[in-house]
Amino acid sequence: MTVARHFAANLLAFSGQRFSDAAYEQARTAIIDTLGVTLAGGVQEGASKLRRVVVPSAATGKSRIFGTDLKLNPLDAALLNGTASHLLDFDDSNSWLHGHISVAVLPALLALADDRELNGEAILRAYLAGYETAVRMGKAVSPFQYRHGWHPTTTVGLFAGVAACAVLLGLNEEQTATALSISASLSSGIKSNFGSETKALVVGQAARSAVMAVLLAQEGFTAGKTAFEHHHGYFNVFNGRENADATPLTEAWTGTPFILDTEKSNNFKYFSCCYAILSPLDGVLALRDETGLTSDDIERIEVQVHPIRFPHINIPQPENPLAGKFSLHYCVARAFVTGTLTLDDFIDPQRFADPHTQSLMNRVTLTTHNEPVTHTAFVTLTTTDGRQFRKTVEGARGSSPKFPLPEGLLKEKFLDCARRVLTAPEAQALYQRLLNDDYR
Amino acid sequence: MTVARHFAANLLAFSGQRFSDAAYEQARTAIIDTLGVTLAGGVQEGASKLRRVVVPSAATGKSRIFGTDLKLNPLDAALLNGTASHLLDFDDSNSWLHGHISVAVLPALLALADDRELNGEAILRAYLAGYETAVRMGKAVSPFQYRHGWHPTTTVGLFAGVAACAVLLGLNEEQTATALSISASLSSGIKSNFGSETKALVVGQAARSAVMAVLLAQEGFTAGKTAFEHHHGYFNVFNGRENADATPLTEAWTGTPFILDTEKSNNFKYFSCCYAILSPLDGVLALRDETGLTSDDIERIEVQVHPIRFPHINIPQPENPLAGKFSLHYCVARAFVTGTLTLDDFIDPQRFADPHTQSLMNRVTLTTHNEPVTHTAFVTLTTTDGRQFRKTVEGARGSSPKFPLPEGLLKEKFLDCARRVLTAPEAQALYQRLLNDDYR
Repeated sequence: MTVARHFAANLLAFSGQRFSDAAYEQARTAIIDTLGVTLAGGVQEGASKLRRVVVPSAATGKSRIFGTDLKLNPLDAALLNGTASHLLDFDDSNSWLHGHISVAVLPALLALADDRELNGEAILRAYLAGYETAVRMGKAVSPFQYRHGWHPTTTVGLFAGVAACAVLLGLNEEQTATALSISASLSSGIKSNFGSETKALVVGQAARSAVMAVLLAQEGFTAGKTAFEHHHGYFNVFNGRENADATPLTEAWTGTPFILDTEKSNNFKYFSCCYAILSPLDGVLALRDETGLTSDDIERIEVQVHPIRFPHINIPQPENPLAGKFSLHYCVARAFVTGTLTLDDFIDPQRFADPHTQSLMNRVTLTTHNEPVTHTAFVTLTTTDGRQFRKTVEGARGSSPKFPLPEGLLKEKFLDCARRVLTAPEAQALYQRLLNDDYR
Repeated sequence: MTVARHFAANLLAFSGQRFSDAAYEQARTAIIDTLGVTLAGGVQEGASKLRRVVVPSAATGKSRIFGTDLKLNPLDAALLNGTASHLLDFDDSNSWLHGHISVAVLPALLALADDRELNGEAILRAYLAGYETAVRMGKAVSPFQYRHGWHPTTTVGLFAGVAACAVLLGLNEEQTATALSISASLSSGIKSNFGSETKALVVGQAARSAVMAVLLAQEGFTAGKTAFEHHHGYFNVFNGRENADATPLTEAWTGTPFILDTEKSNNFKYFSCCYAILSPLDGVLALRDETGLTSDDIERIEVQVHPIRFPHINIPQPENPLAGKFSLHYCVARAFVTGTLTLDDFIDPQRFADPHTQSLMNRVTLTTHNEPVTHTAFVTLTTTDGRQFRKTVEGARGSSPKFPLPEGLLKEKFLDCARRVLTAPEAQALYQRLLNDDYR
């Protein structure tokens, strides 16, 4: 039995199980969060540029294009929504995959669901199948792929999109294996395009490819039987023989679904800055709450992070609001001044130029610590009258089951994202519908 | 200056030169040959399956879909025509690329040319730019890529499609560099899907990606500046540092265009069987001509090929006409019985089952020789009355400038391909138009 056939059989068996309420709850949260960032992503400049190229080529259809009033065919909806979902880099991520799972699964899945008028539990179930696939493929190949320079959200995530679509449409085992095998030749994405709009484009391309592969497999399109384990197959070509292990795909997919994994959980971003800034921000905001200090009271804010975090976020003078996403100094200062960070803080030049923020930025310093845990951050406030307040953060809220995310924070994020497209009451109503598994 | 910027500057300088008549002549021949196999490919089952998936999603437009009466948008035309062009694996190839150049260039180029109503010399010039890019990218990365298991026709050829489209649309240097950099994240294709319809699908996907990348670059879409040389860039990720050399892209693109290269020329296939069978076939057909023998006169046909050719073509009893493409025994027998090989010999079950052919197949034997040149083949006919005739073939017709292809053979192939879609007079008229650089 080939890897693709094993993979398909396990996936279909997994997707047919009775899922726990907790699994559905996690899926529901991830879908709501992903839809929020997709709505906000859809009005970014990169999404507009892509629409100018794609929309004239796209047949209309029943699939929504988030952030617009358009309804197009499912292939191009997957491309446009997949790109929009990742343009802000504000979507959830997972350390098994070393990438972003929900944007690899949901845009393809929802584009097809819209087209076939499917809703509710069918979408949750397909999402869970996609999520499990992403983690298992991630365990099979991703630690190496991420280090090597592949973009696992797309090179690996493509198969998760295929899995979700195959489950949604009820493909049989042979068709599912074929769709996965076709995808082995469509998988693409490298990290040298990180930091540009192309990073998000490839997420959209993978979503489009996932829909296409599943529809082609339904039509009896042919692919190599041993697309994964062949000496010129996916594992050897992308990873090399010693850097891939098919076991997570070929072993029985039993036990607790990985969406409930307590070792590496799905990480939600509640602020749209670089992930490495979240721990320091939690410390700064907690001290702000506890002390009631304002920026005028502050002599300096000293932050210490793990050495592997330091180079990405040590940007004392970012050039513009967008660059501020990777500047610890800007994020910490802005959050201390306003008590939060919103999308607008990385878009609006006036917020960026706010004198209180700019002044406090100059009083923020970043150094490294020697603690073993990479999530750990130390924050010290020194006031103009010489008092010191110190906070240790072992992990940002939402970074693991040990540090859960307050529910309100995700709702706040969703509404902040959605209101860029919808009125406040519309955004509230959509949030309620999504809580009730109504995705139309 | 980045590799992408060097690459773009060299490409644009190259494409602006005054090309020789010989270069145009080679381009003309390749385009005619590619259009022929695309017409025939468009009526294959794989093309129909793909159309059932893509056409409902595709906006109409001005770009022809070969093998049909459809006119669609340029993105989907590139996908459909690109796939059709390679479904028969009957298109030209090049040993610098270790793959097929014209199908990497022409489907994207013609889809855009149709859309913009461009014709004649503009197409020849863009084709020449794409051809040069394919060879230079091939020299930079392909010897390794082919051995490693990549599918250079697509992983490398994508950039050739981008180059041709950028030249056709007159992109500036920065836009061209951006289009090439976007493509670095869209490049895909592995060899484990060889022998299936997916091999051709990826050619279509690359053509679509080429058109999309060029149109996105025109819209100001952003990509990484160092997409090729970055430590997580195209060269390192696909090849590894020691297996890629940017020199063929960054050195000045002067000297004779590679389409006129006498070391490794563009190879045309005049029969649609496996390339490794062409040398033996030339020997068998020459002996048939010279002796006037018929299959009833033959006791046995003994063929010797280089050991690296042997495993692919040693299929004494192919299961069906399509599998006959890789069976030396079937090809040699069928060619001896009829004096040629046509597409129908690999499609039509009645031709395949012809008793003369099946009987002669049983009298064909294949072994290996010890000569150093891999193209060399020995053919020995033994008649029922004990006479022997022997022929040594050092290289098949069309395999190098030393063994040129008789012009009539390519015309015959074009007409055999085209008449699957057109009437004989229509096919003749099209051939004449193409000779006059009229591609509409």
